[in-house]
Amino acid sequence: MDSNLYYIIMAGGVGSRFWPASRTVRPKQFLDILGIGETLIQQTYNRFIKYTTPENIYIVTHESYQQHIHDQLPAVKDSQLIYEPSRRNTAPCIAYAVEKIKALNPNAILVIAPSDHLILKEDVFIQTVHTAAEFAAQNDGIITLGITPTFPSTGYGYIQYLETDAVVKKVKMFTEKPPQDVAQTFLESGDFVWNAGLFIGSVNSLSDAIREHCSYIYDAFEEIKMYLNTPDEYEYIRSIYTSFPKDISFDVGIMEKANNVYVIPAAFGWSDLGTWGAVYDTITKDANSNVVNAANAVLHDTKNSIIFAENQKVIFVQGLDNFIVVDSKDALLICQKDREQDIKKYVNEIKLTKGHKYL
Amino acid sequence: MDSNLYYIIMAGGVGSRFWPASRTVRPKQFLDILGIGETLIQQTYNRFIKYTTPENIYIVTHESYQQHIHDQLPAVKDSQLIYEPSRRNTAPCIAYAVEKIKALNPNAILVIAPSDHLILKEDVFIQTVHTAAEFAAQNDGIITLGITPTFPSTGYGYIQYLETDAVVKKVKMFTEKPPQDVAQTFLESGDFVWNAGLFIGSVNSLSDAIREHCSYIYDAFEEIKMYLNTPDEYEYIRSIYTSFPKDISFDVGIMEKANNVYVIPAAFGWSDLGTWGAVYDTITKDANSNVVNAANAVLHDTKNSIIFAENQKVIFVQGLDNFIVVDSKDALLICQKDREQDIKKYVNEIKLTKGHKYL
Repeated sequence: MDSNLYYIIMAGGVGSRFWPASRTVRPKQFLDILGIGETLIQQTYNRFIKYTTPENIYIVTHESYQQHIHDQLPAVKDSQLIYEPSRRNTAPCIAYAVEKIKALNPNAILVIAPSDHLILKEDVFIQTVHTAAEFAAQNDGIITLGITPTFPSTGYGYIQYLETDAVVKKVKMFTEKPPQDVAQTFLESGDFVWNAGLFIGSVNSLSDAIREHCSYIYDAFEEIKMYLNTPDEYEYIRSIYTSFPKDISFDVGIMEKANNVYVIPAAFGWSDLGTWGAVYDTITKDANSNVVNAANAVLHDTKNSIIFAENQKVIFVQGLDNFIVVDSKDALLICQKDREQDIKKYVNEIKLTKGHKYL
Repeated sequence: MDSNLYYIIMAGGVGSRFWPASRTVRPKQFLDILGIGETLIQQTYNRFIKYTTPENIYIVTHESYQQHIHDQLPAVKDSQLIYEPSRRNTAPCIAYAVEKIKALNPNAILVIAPSDHLILKEDVFIQTVHTAAEFAAQNDGIITLGITPTFPSTGYGYIQYLETDAVVKKVKMFTEKPPQDVAQTFLESGDFVWNAGLFIGSVNSLSDAIREHCSYIYDAFEEIKMYLNTPDEYEYIRSIYTSFPKDISFDVGIMEKANNVYVIPAAFGWSDLGTWGAVYDTITKDANSNVVNAANAVLHDTKNSIIFAENQKVIFVQGLDNFIVVDSKDALLICQKDREQDIKKYVNEIKLTKGHKYL
């Protein structure tokens, strides 16, 4: 174990595509969306704790999720929790973790990972992460992991790399979710991988990149850095967070602009579990191609559908084909599976017409 | 107002065809199934109270529904409630009411009515009831009300009468729910009406008919009649109820066998509201032919469907055509509308696989 290697789990997201299973008060990372007896953040934490000590895992999350963290990860000490006072996408979140750990250990290497992704081949994943961390210790650069695409997904971002024999490849270009024909071209070209949303780098490389490409965020942290890891930390963090833009991701704000960005193509059975469709594709189906993650579901003449409920309700479904049914305490969703890209829009409509309490 | 005229509301049914809105602990008559701000039993009671005094309305129900009666009909005194200790269909229920009222007033005329039917034309209904009551006061016979059929229903029982100019017609034959072609013949013949499940007669005529055609029920009440309308009534009722057969209706046990049975054909906008389909046909539809009886439903690309929920949940439905969606606290039903005849079967399956608690 390398005591300079830190794992930062990002767990502040809202996950509105999984409404009403995922709620503002309890988003996707805190759900057992796969029905395996562990929530996604528990899976993520357990994946890392085997290879490090508790002191080297930090969780960045929103302060309102304190109780979920305590309930689901009782072994995690308060000192390992980084609370964001408001949601500002990943750029401020990562900058916060970088500056906080840098102040503790200027030789730190960070593995920054989402809390709500699926990784089936853990050994391949950890091996790839360690390769990236070793590279980060010896080179000035930020390394991301790229998933070898298996189909022309229009739901993932793509990373194009420069062809080379090296394991760690220089990134040529980032492309956000492409249309179908472009995705097909990417798949065929062989030098495109899916962006898995993981970032590995030394605190110095990460901090430098933030300074260069998001100087206003860097400057804000620079001004309050003497309070990091002190009892006053949160007070000062709160004061600077309000000035950050609402929605700036680390991908757009830093990765797409930086020149010292690398990717390691890998195939570790990854899914971002970004939609019910992705969850459906992941889970073993029953004889009628249904995915049922509900204690008391009874299905008749129903196929190709997802039934999700965390409660003990009897969910009786007859006559559905290719549907998503999600039941929660105060909301029920019945929606065609191929219309799931609209769920975010539907949730917004519900916010406007029915109020925030249903989000 | 005729002080000899009594209204007996039968409110002991379970209504499993409306599961999971209707439950064993709260069946259909105690629901506002039409979404009009009144439960069906409230509608039934309010229909009669305009024409009589509270002392002349009795409600026969199961003892477990005491709280619903108190909540929904707070003006009804305990003395007006007749509790059955167990469910034995309508023959024992009506026999109980007949013998109890007969002991109080041997000149009583009873109007025995279901608690969960729809009647749109109240004036026509009451006028017909009064015509039947006048006939019952002057003749030995049991009068039922027959609905002039408007379509070849296979869901209702039919009554054939002897053609005559008299308003009150002698009944020729009862027929249970017929197949489609037979129903069509009935409709065309002109001397068939739907059996609305109402019975009007003097306590003497009713009692005599029970004695003649269900002597074991009559004999049981005869043996304990000195305890009726005393504090010991319920104790003795309990002792005789266990001996009654499980499932004997007044139609089958008495009406189909008796010779002095009459019918008044009428058209008072009646439905037995026996299924969601009957409810659907009754209620005003929205622009997409949906019937929505739920506080917070949001529908997209959905038509010809019924959405029912008594709760405040957001019910988001996309992509359904011709479906029934019923949400309750511990059960959810999603079912094609034309499969509603199977709901009873489904409920039985749920009882067997998930237990009684979901009924």
